[in-house]
Amino acid sequence: MMIVMKPSATEDEIQAVVTRIEDAGARAHPVNFALIAGPCTVESRDQVLTTADAVNAAGATMFRGGAYKPRTSPYAFQGLGVEGLRLLAEAKERTGLPIVTELMDARDLPAVLEVADVIQIGARNMQNYSLLSEVGRSGCAVLIKRGLSSTLEELLMAAEYVLKEGNENVLLCERGIRTFETAYRFTLDLTAVPVLKELTHLPVIVDPSHAAGRRALVEPLSLAAAAVGADGIIVEVHPEPDEAICDGPQQLRTDAFADYAARVEQAAAVAGKILHAAV
Amino acid sequence: MMIVMKPSATEDEIQAVVTRIEDAGARAHPVNFALIAGPCTVESRDQVLTTADAVNAAGATMFRGGAYKPRTSPYAFQGLGVEGLRLLAEAKERTGLPIVTELMDARDLPAVLEVADVIQIGARNMQNYSLLSEVGRSGCAVLIKRGLSSTLEELLMAAEYVLKEGNENVLLCERGIRTFETAYRFTLDLTAVPVLKELTHLPVIVDPSHAAGRRALVEPLSLAAAAVGADGIIVEVHPEPDEAICDGPQQLRTDAFADYAARVEQAAAVAGKILHAAV
Amino acid sequence: MMIVMKPSATEDEIQAVVTRIEDAGARAHPVNFALIAGPCTVESRDQVLTTADAVNAAGATMFRGGAYKPRTSPYAFQGLGVEGLRLLAEAKERTGLPIVTELMDARDLPAVLEVADVIQIGARNMQNYSLLSEVGRSGCAVLIKRGLSSTLEELLMAAEYVLKEGNENVLLCERGIRTFETAYRFTLDLTAVPVLKELTHLPVIVDPSHAAGRRALVEPLSLAAAAVGADGIIVEVHPEPDEAICDGPQQLRTDAFADYAARVEQAAAVAGKILHAAV
Amino acid sequence: MMIVMKPSATEDEIQAVVTRIEDAGARAHPVNFALIAGPCTVESRDQVLTTADAVNAAGATMFRGGAYKPRTSPYAFQGLGVEGLRLLAEAKERTGLPIVTELMDARDLPAVLEVADVIQIGARNMQNYSLLSEVGRSGCAVLIKRGLSSTLEELLMAAEYVLKEGNENVLLCERGIRTFETAYRFTLDLTAVPVLKELTHLPVIVDPSHAAGRRALVEPLSLAAAAVGADGIIVEVHPEPDEAICDGPQQLRTDAFADYAARVEQAAAVAGKILHAAV
Repeated sequence: MMIVMKPSATEDEIQAVVTRIEDAGARAHPVNFALIAGPCTVESRDQVLTTADAVNAAGATMFRGGAYKPRTSPYAFQGLGVEGLRLLAEAKERTGLPIVTELMDARDLPAVLEVADVIQIGARNMQNYSLLSEVGRSGCAVLIKRGLSSTLEELLMAAEYVLKEGNENVLLCERGIRTFETAYRFTLDLTAVPVLKELTHLPVIVDPSHAAGRRALVEPLSLAAAAVGADGIIVEVHPEPDEAICDGPQQLRTDAFADYAARVEQAAAVAGKILHAAV
Repeated sequence: MMIVMKPSATEDEIQAVVTRIEDAGARAHPVNFALIAGPCTVESRDQVLTTADAVNAAGATMFRGGAYKPRTSPYAFQGLGVEGLRLLAEAKERTGLPIVTELMDARDLPAVLEVADVIQIGARNMQNYSLLSEVGRSGCAVLIKRGLSSTLEELLMAAEYVLKEGNENVLLCERGIRTFETAYRFTLDLTAVPVLKELTHLPVIVDPSHAAGRRALVEPLSLAAAAVGADGIIVEVHPEPDEAICDGPQQLRTDAFADYAARVEQAAAVAGKILHAAV
Repeated sequence: MMIVMKPSATEDEIQAVVTRIEDAGARAHPVNFALIAGPCTVESRDQVLTTADAVNAAGATMFRGGAYKPRTSPYAFQGLGVEGLRLLAEAKERTGLPIVTELMDARDLPAVLEVADVIQIGARNMQNYSLLSEVGRSGCAVLIKRGLSSTLEELLMAAEYVLKEGNENVLLCERGIRTFETAYRFTLDLTAVPVLKELTHLPVIVDPSHAAGRRALVEPLSLAAAAVGADGIIVEVHPEPDEAICDGPQQLRTDAFADYAARVEQAAAVAGKILHAAV
Repeated sequence: MMIVMKPSATEDEIQAVVTRIEDAGARAHPVNFALIAGPCTVESRDQVLTTADAVNAAGATMFRGGAYKPRTSPYAFQGLGVEGLRLLAEAKERTGLPIVTELMDARDLPAVLEVADVIQIGARNMQNYSLLSEVGRSGCAVLIKRGLSSTLEELLMAAEYVLKEGNENVLLCERGIRTFETAYRFTLDLTAVPVLKELTHLPVIVDPSHAAGRRALVEPLSLAAAAVGADGIIVEVHPEPDEAICDGPQQLRTDAFADYAARVEQAAAVAGKILHAAV
């Protein structure tokens, strides 16, 4: 394992990181493969519970859903907030699935901590160092999405802001980078997966939904992500994507999810991964 | 003037923005050309005052300096914080130059507001929407740096988060984008200047220092920025760049600044701009 | 199937293309999965025959090797030329494997046609329209590599230069694009595979070797390429990569190739592809 | 001056290049600033002669026009060919302006040499090494356009293919690179100009027309190119752009060219360049 650190780090700082990481590795359970599924945004009780039941029945291992939504335009829907968190708690109680949900503002941290098992830091906030440090101090597991044009070194350094606070429960997430190609929303960079796994012991998750931008591409990209050796997939699922408040075109349908999950499991097996409780 | 808005905006929302912008335009003083100069980071009383005196004598129209520094690595110098703000206040009192300084965390806003005439939002925080909204509500002028791979539409939408709070004192800043070329740190995108000026009435500033990454490129890029029609330049200057805590190689020397400023003034004149009190 | 054509095409031209493609589709054999393997460059009789025997025994379906090499520097090894073609002919006679080899200059076409079953047009020549037209007129099958920063539309238009001459035996090849990320040589764009397959009936091949630039990444990227739905893989194999004249670090070892081929076959199966005589 | 060469070059090869470049430098006339203007494509006798007269009267120092046009689609207009060359010869005889015109296929070289003073190698052919070598052997001056995503090192290596044949009359041309930004056709990379001038003695020209893609951006980008220190500008001019066969929206009008030329001259002066007979 190679550790990427800035030249300004002292020998002592470097050694401390090495020790911390090695300890963490020794304590870690064998990581297999996580299938994290759920709607882009929490919209209503019915939508959340229907989706949670469906993905739970189909073998998802965590439930995702956004209560706070970072939107390019200030005039777009910004999420249900606290009410959304409450619905996620209900889904968790009902299905037993751990919850992954995004935090954008440190002032919402106490409310988010009441329900989240994994706090998601979105691509736009990957270098919001105040937020990363706060989440680090909370001790809660953190899934950090790679920024649209962040290098792997910058992603690892963002993770360092959490690790530095003594919080080793960090997952990295590739979700597509910005390139010249305009035929799709983002270019999913699957080379990042094996390269990150050479550079760090942290699990590497892939988000095919945001990269693809449309449903037809989600399954092939998921199979590729599983075959390339990712430790999990985080994917958007909705009971009625055409009615979704945001990102409808890229959300899988709940009624197609079981078939999808079965194929992802097959692809993961090619890379020596087993789909069941992970991370 | 064309206004870029997301499809989800209602007619009323669009009209409100149009009206607000037109009013602002009517009230605005004629914008000419701003030369904003100062060190990357506030390091010491001597460094700040020496630089402030030098750039003031050479005709700079604002003074810049960072008290809070966003650093890729958590182990790098993070800025002097409140002590840095105090030194900026002293430089302001001494020279009369308005102060531009960066804010990274909303909790530091009250302290920053005591000295800043323009609050800088850095490239990494361009889509930190909580921070943009807070700064919007403060009423203070805001300089928003374009993210490393942000489109012009995303930059304008970031500005909307400030404008939406009734704060029209927004300056946009091009500071280099990330491309495939590795022969220099970033690729300064000067096409953004005339295109932004077609899309918005907001002033457009160029930061040649961060794009270039080394001193020899700063002057040619500054002349180009002035000639392309920018409303100002924000540039790093240090009395002893080789001793600087960060970004030394890209900072101009105080003793070369007067010649530099004279040439920038010439280039701005080609584009019909006059270098004196602006914005 | 959607066909991408420029607005300047007349209705008649469009209809002619549609008809030609539909006819081709009707005549085509079911396409499965091709595993095209061999050294980057033809270096010696021993190297070529050893590699050909090894990949043939391990189930490769075509043999690749460069006699003419496009090199960034004019001072780098430029390939064995006609002597290289002779060695490829010997490998073909011995193993029965069809030959894929690159053409850079139309004046070498007659010599290349004597041995090539598929002529490769490299990424640098993807928009060398004179060369594409010549190869089109030859009637020989053509594998066109996507340029480093070519859009899918430009790749399809390059294919049109061949198709326009009445030659429908065209294979498209994704081989990595240029992005901001410098942690690896190129960014393999696997989203291109399902998107190209929506846009055209032409087979889509993936080259993981050039994208990765080093051996450890070739297998995970190959598995991903197979799982995403590619119609084949073109991969570099060498008996002694450390002694290779060029691209040694990215070439697989002949003695590891059989295991590699078996895993690729598994991954292709997940996407419903069968590895045996294809194209 | 630093020379970029591949590791595979021997000491002798490196020394030979150094000597050749130094000799060339010693012999060279002082290079000032070239204004190369003319239509994208040669369309008709009237169009060519009208434009040539206009740009000549306004102080252009060379005339450009394409007889062979590389087009993305095989169904688009491909240029007048030999007839186009004949019209360029007439323009040259009439105005005395040297001619810059593109070569795409080595077989057209003899015909092009009869009229061209500078042969243009387009961005798509920047790594067409056969073509570069042929042009190198011809001894004619060569303007090499940077590929859409070529690094400066690759551009310099393309120039080496010409220099290696003993032909030192090479001009480099920045014409915009491909980035994530879609608000304009290409991103003009003006940082390339001062960086290339550190790396090589070869003149560096800028093409603002192809980068911008529309007329309103051509003048600001031209002023920036002149101010950044370019050795010249190559720009498209047409008597009736709305009627142009290709690239109409980006061509300047002949009747606005004199004003444009005057402003470019001013901007060049800021960088210490004088607009008159150059190269």
